[in-house]
Amino acid sequence: MSSFKTIEWKNNKVVMIDQRKLPTEEVYIECDSFEQVAQCIKDMVIRGAPAIGVAASMGIALGALKIKTDNKDTFLKSLEKIYSTIWNTRPTAVNLFWAIEKMKAIVKENIDNEIPQIKDILINSAITICKEDIEACMRIGKFGSKLIDKNSVVLTHCNAGALATAGYGTALGVIRAAFEDGKEISVISCETRPFLQGARLTAWELSKDNIPVKLITDNMAGYLMSKNRIDSIVVGADRIASNGDVANKIGTYSLSILAKHHKIPFYVAAPVSTIDFECKSGEQIPIEQRNPKEVTHINNERVAADVEVLNPAFDITPNENIDAIITDMGLFRPKYKETLAKLRNG
Amino acid sequence: MSSFKTIEWKNNKVVMIDQRKLPTEEVYIECDSFEQVAQCIKDMVIRGAPAIGVAASMGIALGALKIKTDNKDTFLKSLEKIYSTIWNTRPTAVNLFWAIEKMKAIVKENIDNEIPQIKDILINSAITICKEDIEACMRIGKFGSKLIDKNSVVLTHCNAGALATAGYGTALGVIRAAFEDGKEISVISCETRPFLQGARLTAWELSKDNIPVKLITDNMAGYLMSKNRIDSIVVGADRIASNGDVANKIGTYSLSILAKHHKIPFYVAAPVSTIDFECKSGEQIPIEQRNPKEVTHINNERVAADVEVLNPAFDITPNENIDAIITDMGLFRPKYKETLAKLRNG
Repeated sequence: MSSFKTIEWKNNKVVMIDQRKLPTEEVYIECDSFEQVAQCIKDMVIRGAPAIGVAASMGIALGALKIKTDNKDTFLKSLEKIYSTIWNTRPTAVNLFWAIEKMKAIVKENIDNEIPQIKDILINSAITICKEDIEACMRIGKFGSKLIDKNSVVLTHCNAGALATAGYGTALGVIRAAFEDGKEISVISCETRPFLQGARLTAWELSKDNIPVKLITDNMAGYLMSKNRIDSIVVGADRIASNGDVANKIGTYSLSILAKHHKIPFYVAAPVSTIDFECKSGEQIPIEQRNPKEVTHINNERVAADVEVLNPAFDITPNENIDAIITDMGLFRPKYKETLAKLRNG
Repeated sequence: MSSFKTIEWKNNKVVMIDQRKLPTEEVYIECDSFEQVAQCIKDMVIRGAPAIGVAASMGIALGALKIKTDNKDTFLKSLEKIYSTIWNTRPTAVNLFWAIEKMKAIVKENIDNEIPQIKDILINSAITICKEDIEACMRIGKFGSKLIDKNSVVLTHCNAGALATAGYGTALGVIRAAFEDGKEISVISCETRPFLQGARLTAWELSKDNIPVKLITDNMAGYLMSKNRIDSIVVGADRIASNGDVANKIGTYSLSILAKHHKIPFYVAAPVSTIDFECKSGEQIPIEQRNPKEVTHINNERVAADVEVLNPAFDITPNENIDAIITDMGLFRPKYKETLAKLRNG
């Protein structure tokens, strides 16, 4: 397990590590309102698809707790406002919508209870979603570790780690499990511009847990592949379409093309909640465009000339570039349209 | 022409724009000694293969000028020290060594002259190298412009611009010429981590000259290619082997693989002085490993966790990924081993 807590429910508050401050400061933010939780998701205090899902569920529970009414209708109307505020924080990660739908369904199932009871149920559900996310990650790790060779070098992009989940991580869960299995692996972490999740979070998280890691800029990955210095690639996912196309951090697509060219296995690790069965292909996944300042400024200082900027936060990796999708329900191989469908049907 | 001077000989000093300070400050450094010129090359006050060549020749002229002796042997011995100091600044760009060899040859040819005359000849030669570099860039532009379609989007990496040469630029020379030819092109500039030459220099230089430019992080290039938003790629070169393999800024190799996958033409623009005919293939080109701090720090502030870093400054793009090499002596197409050989032989 990782030696810090990404997010937790504590004394009727939602506490999360401020990922914008890492690695220089380890600061925790205590959210007292659902609006604050929503803002934290928007501002990337917390990020990573599964972690966003957990934050969303805790945000709803916190919002529900704070509703001051005895009237069920007023209570339900207030809940609707909470759902929609959290819904509109970020567009790409499907776990956000999955968590909101799950909490909505729980309210529906328990609609005949008293308001205080519903509040308790929502709090317990959010805590359970958090706990289950860690368990899912550990299962992902167990399944994924089999794919990682002893003494091999694994490249990862962005942060699909304990910090991107409730704990343990998805892609880093696979790496963590392989390491715990005594495989003596080492990791190459792409820094992941513009937000530097690889440099700031993955490198921090792995070194904190004594897993050997080297940092590179994103544009060095191809060079290392050409020198046979990368044995496999494992990344996370923000949304997986039912055909196996994967939305993940910008740069993932390029890595998948480079991996294919160099015949390096390319794996995606994500909980089943990341699969959007309503989504037929990657083309249907909305790509968030973020603030140009993320590219032009670092630590609030301008590092670029004052020109127009493109800042898509994600890209789509087509299913044919993915050798396996590692989930908490097992490994899936192409053709994903068929193999993933089995998950949906039972 | 560009609206600033990268490097010039002025009042017996070598004046260069401090490229580390761009785009926030436009500051010029006046070098008074060859040691200072060497340090400027090492510290990347000036960078870009052709500009390094010009700086080397001016550094030698400046060093020669400052030698205080009437004794020819002492003079020649002092010159040897100057050559070797400048030789040891940076290992990859061949223009550095080309310029030193050229200045050495000039000394040899004029060895029977008086010392003051030799000094004058060296100064004039350095000024001529500078002037000829600009002319070479303009010829590169003229030849390369033919390859660029009207209304197309050209992607470039790093800075192979006026700032990387004595003026006008190689890759940006092609872009400048196409723009001046009324082709209404626009440019995508990869920011080029870790030193951010694309964000700081290319974006600054193009916007200063009113050429439309958009900035992206390096890992966005593949995504844009997949969306058919890039029509061609033009980059510079730090050294070209006789078989057409190209050493250029780290990340160039990845772009060439992505271009091949997306069937986007990939061009290298460089003066003939960048071709190292002694070098059979890219494998023989030494790759400079630079300070890890370039990756972990920006503006002297830490942006990454405290882990080990790889920082190769260049990579090798194999000749089969290059659709044409655009030189001041014309366009060259595969197979480069044969086509470039004609240049050597006549």
